[in-house]
Amino acid sequence: MTATIGVIMGSKSDWETMKHACDVLEELGLAYEKKVVSAHRTPDLMFEYAETAAARGLRVIIAGAGGAAHLPGMVAAKTELPVIGVPVKSAALNGLDSLLSIVQMPAGIPVATVAIGQAGAANAGLLAAQIVGAFEPEVRERIRARRERTKQAVLEAGDLE
Amino acid sequence: MTATIGVIMGSKSDWETMKHACDVLEELGLAYEKKVVSAHRTPDLMFEYAETAAARGLRVIIAGAGGAAHLPGMVAAKTELPVIGVPVKSAALNGLDSLLSIVQMPAGIPVATVAIGQAGAANAGLLAAQIVGAFEPEVRERIRARRERTKQAVLEAGDLE
Amino acid sequence: MTATIGVIMGSKSDWETMKHACDVLEELGLAYEKKVVSAHRTPDLMFEYAETAAARGLRVIIAGAGGAAHLPGMVAAKTELPVIGVPVKSAALNGLDSLLSIVQMPAGIPVATVAIGQAGAANAGLLAAQIVGAFEPEVRERIRARRERTKQAVLEAGDLE
Amino acid sequence: MTATIGVIMGSKSDWETMKHACDVLEELGLAYEKKVVSAHRTPDLMFEYAETAAARGLRVIIAGAGGAAHLPGMVAAKTELPVIGVPVKSAALNGLDSLLSIVQMPAGIPVATVAIGQAGAANAGLLAAQIVGAFEPEVRERIRARRERTKQAVLEAGDLE
Amino acid sequence: MTATIGVIMGSKSDWETMKHACDVLEELGLAYEKKVVSAHRTPDLMFEYAETAAARGLRVIIAGAGGAAHLPGMVAAKTELPVIGVPVKSAALNGLDSLLSIVQMPAGIPVATVAIGQAGAANAGLLAAQIVGAFEPEVRERIRARRERTKQAVLEAGDLE
Amino acid sequence: MTATIGVIMGSKSDWETMKHACDVLEELGLAYEKKVVSAHRTPDLMFEYAETAAARGLRVIIAGAGGAAHLPGMVAAKTELPVIGVPVKSAALNGLDSLLSIVQMPAGIPVATVAIGQAGAANAGLLAAQIVGAFEPEVRERIRARRERTKQAVLEAGDLE
Amino acid sequence: MTATIGVIMGSKSDWETMKHACDVLEELGLAYEKKVVSAHRTPDLMFEYAETAAARGLRVIIAGAGGAAHLPGMVAAKTELPVIGVPVKSAALNGLDSLLSIVQMPAGIPVATVAIGQAGAANAGLLAAQIVGAFEPEVRERIRARRERTKQAVLEAGDLE
Amino acid sequence: MTATIGVIMGSKSDWETMKHACDVLEELGLAYEKKVVSAHRTPDLMFEYAETAAARGLRVIIAGAGGAAHLPGMVAAKTELPVIGVPVKSAALNGLDSLLSIVQMPAGIPVATVAIGQAGAANAGLLAAQIVGAFEPEVRERIRARRERTKQAVLEAGDLE
Repeated sequence: MTATIGVIMGSKSDWETMKHACDVLEELGLAYEKKVVSAHRTPDLMFEYAETAAARGLRVIIAGAGGAAHLPGMVAAKTELPVIGVPVKSAALNGLDSLLSIVQMPAGIPVATVAIGQAGAANAGLLAAQIVGAFEPEVRERIRARRERTKQAVLEAGDLE
Repeated sequence: MTATIGVIMGSKSDWETMKHACDVLEELGLAYEKKVVSAHRTPDLMFEYAETAAARGLRVIIAGAGGAAHLPGMVAAKTELPVIGVPVKSAALNGLDSLLSIVQMPAGIPVATVAIGQAGAANAGLLAAQIVGAFEPEVRERIRARRERTKQAVLEAGDLE
Repeated sequence: MTATIGVIMGSKSDWETMKHACDVLEELGLAYEKKVVSAHRTPDLMFEYAETAAARGLRVIIAGAGGAAHLPGMVAAKTELPVIGVPVKSAALNGLDSLLSIVQMPAGIPVATVAIGQAGAANAGLLAAQIVGAFEPEVRERIRARRERTKQAVLEAGDLE
Repeated sequence: MTATIGVIMGSKSDWETMKHACDVLEELGLAYEKKVVSAHRTPDLMFEYAETAAARGLRVIIAGAGGAAHLPGMVAAKTELPVIGVPVKSAALNGLDSLLSIVQMPAGIPVATVAIGQAGAANAGLLAAQIVGAFEPEVRERIRARRERTKQAVLEAGDLE
Repeated sequence: MTATIGVIMGSKSDWETMKHACDVLEELGLAYEKKVVSAHRTPDLMFEYAETAAARGLRVIIAGAGGAAHLPGMVAAKTELPVIGVPVKSAALNGLDSLLSIVQMPAGIPVATVAIGQAGAANAGLLAAQIVGAFEPEVRERIRARRERTKQAVLEAGDLE
Repeated sequence: MTATIGVIMGSKSDWETMKHACDVLEELGLAYEKKVVSAHRTPDLMFEYAETAAARGLRVIIAGAGGAAHLPGMVAAKTELPVIGVPVKSAALNGLDSLLSIVQMPAGIPVATVAIGQAGAANAGLLAAQIVGAFEPEVRERIRARRERTKQAVLEAGDLE
Repeated sequence: MTATIGVIMGSKSDWETMKHACDVLEELGLAYEKKVVSAHRTPDLMFEYAETAAARGLRVIIAGAGGAAHLPGMVAAKTELPVIGVPVKSAALNGLDSLLSIVQMPAGIPVATVAIGQAGAANAGLLAAQIVGAFEPEVRERIRARRERTKQAVLEAGDLE
Repeated sequence: MTATIGVIMGSKSDWETMKHACDVLEELGLAYEKKVVSAHRTPDLMFEYAETAAARGLRVIIAGAGGAAHLPGMVAAKTELPVIGVPVKSAALNGLDSLLSIVQMPAGIPVATVAIGQAGAANAGLLAAQIVGAFEPEVRERIRARRERTKQAVLEAGDLE
């Protein structure tokens, strides 16, 4: 099955965070590919990845990075596909630097930014699915079913006993 | 023409920011609707708006709000459509409160967050277009043409004379 | 005994924090109910909870949440009862996001915000009691007695031996 | 008419902010008194004010201050009445110092904190009214009517024409 | 020997930090007294402490507190003696709240603020000694000797072997 | 009259802030000298100033600087006199950089830090006077009288009419 | 004369800031070239600029950008020349986002970051000159002479009359 | 072999961070010297170190410090050599204070600032090498080879298996 979603990250150590995006994509039955692509250490690979993404069939790219996180914004500069940025929690500033480096893009090149860390990565997977779901009713239905399960879990936990 | 994109904002004063989203949508020829919907002052209207959005034909919702900005996240809780959040610059904290209130969503309900203020609003329009463009080649082509124009403008400005 | 205070929280994991509110309410002999109600995962339940709160006899609602914490503000939008918001400490930003998401409400819908974390939760219980105590002298008397005990503990610790 | 609400502020220059609390109280027909009471320049007056507040018939105290804002917390330490703190926008740090100085109270003495600046002051007036309204149905009714008017204003602005 | 320096702190748990001030005072042979005095839980004791400090022979007061740290500023409001404030590291915000609550005093009542945590507490002891030393040459000489020892320690560590 | 207080600042443009320190010193009748001394542009002058300060009869040094503000800490490293640091409001970060650069001194060399900007400068003058006043009763008396005047001003403003 | 220093910026509007770098380079007689090169709008031009920089004779590159500022870091990823990053003051967050986006580079690709705004830009020019001066004594001499002039200006301003 | 790079740090405890700079210098075959030099505890040694650096053959100085980190800026004030500043992670504020104290230098004296902590220290070593490499092709070649190895490591990690 051709991948619809590309999941990339700036370093192997980001996998601990980014696997939460992949878990959600698997749960929702969306085909994805995953790869370490570094903006700073493999800039040419990054550009090639972004330039060929649409032609390879991808619809959405999820990019995670930490610190001076340039991967999501630079990939977004090289493709017209929507790019979701995941700010990975950083060593000193807890991901505030990652967040600002990703979200504060200048007019012209947006990055769809989610929360810092694992919750953000999981939501990146969901957001990618929602984007696909906006055009594929079957995917939207799976999201709706997942939400229903989440809701039931909250309701059961409700009384705190 | 049925609107594909819904643009909502928490208060009339947010229009100064959010019109930049609408300008981009118009430039790219995407049908949109716009409305003031307040999470705190018209909560029922907000829920109704979100619940009926998909059925009315919307594919993406852009929601702008400032301060304790709950509109994007609450709309996202009530629809499976992708929701783009625009943090409007706030009076005391320059939009840092708006940004954190929008982007730091818990796992389960993502908001695709863009930059604070007018640049973010313009990018929200572009991101909505890119989402549509991921499934409609013609829209993607218009985005590519717009980027080409932007690039030419930079190249012409390049020598700073 | 009908509950006078409602204690709600966005997720089961918030109980670790919010139980400090309940401990204080029990110590002061105030009847309360507690429940997990999620703004994002159970939005309809949240609205129903808020809409029926006054009729069920509640006088004050205490709501705790973390990250993009929308529960206190959205409950406040759906009831005229005073709502106390407890910013739960978040994973990446230590509750600064929770605090700003709760306290920076726009004019029209206030949330009575307390400190981040357990101290804030305990104070939410006390504040709820003080609100009741402003109209029920017996409750105020119990608060006064509790303060006297706290003061004695400080005085005894005073010499640090 | 005996004042039910006391509105105090650390300096005459805070009146620009705090008058928004008084405006709301007047609109809702709640009797209030207002006074400049400085934690640092008139500490004895502050203690006396707080100690006699309940006996004078006050039910809620609203205290506004900026910078190292000690007024709300110190008043709260000297009365069992609920105290609402308004962080006044400060010269250098835009009220972030005021906010943290007011909201981060240790367990034992809560301050019901609202947003920075004028919106927060207006909400302090509303919150005081909601506290009274929790025990006086007629006041709650006036709050409900005010909210209805606010909602209508949003609905009328809705279409942005 | 009559105490020259008063060391107070808002809670017994602050002793872990504040003992570093006392260690320095002992090392420099300055007589001091130490006590838990809480701005919020024992406000009257705090005022009495501050009001009688000069008459009891104190020349400098060192006050440590965390969170919404009002102790140093309120003591400063009740005595003309110089007051040194130590921001104790807080649970959620690492002492940034403590720092701003102490240092951002309004014109009229200064607090001599030092660094957050143990280094700050040690420096509070040194600063108190330097204040006394400005008028008592013998104390200044002891400070000079201590600095010389510190300098030698750095010089010996210099080559990192 | 020999100067008791030295007032220095890193740049001529800091005078706008630092004159508030001098105004207070004049009001309280304390002899002072003032000078531009730059840590970065005249480092040798700075060291000489600090080294000779005590011998020239100074008892306290007030040093104001902005941005990466090294003047107060470096002067403190070269004299045993107490040094008061005034964080001057900076262009980009509003003085938060100045504050942290001054207050976060490592154990061994304290700087008595006051608030950012003009209020801080005025308080630096007062703090210097309080330090002198701890040993010279007549100065303390002048401070007390000044406080009394300030208190009367607040009391007169009290009723806000 | 072949340019030794390349000065680039992300947008024409950054020239207001970056001209201060060029002014210093001119004052010190260093040949430079200047150009608008946008990381996001002209990514290929940026890569080409960086890849050919050393061969064209450049020794140092100065790159200024604001917001999610990726230009300095991405240029640094494509050249072994030292890259100096200037954080341009941004609309909402005053350049804090620019600073963190530039300075927090991961191990492997450094950016020599200077202060936010015009002072930082001027210092970027000086730093570039100091790098050249470390290998060309004549340039170092010009820097020394410039410092001497700056020092004299401070000394003359010293007495504040 | 005469040292080309000087590596200094404010305290022995900074070695844990700064050794990462030395590791890179060794890997790249650059001669360096290392030393503890404290701005606050050994100010005269610091000045002497800076004043004699160029004559001793150094081309670049790397200076690491934490908190109110004055070492890099003060060394820069006393030499025309380029100075690289490493913000060491601090106890309370995670190095944000170190970063601002180092990077926000006023116009006239630049410090080439790198990231907080160990990644920054490693990059300081690299940046020093790049500065030397701008004038010594052989060094530049070694940097290029190192980057190639880093790139290969990323490519091999790429598929995350």
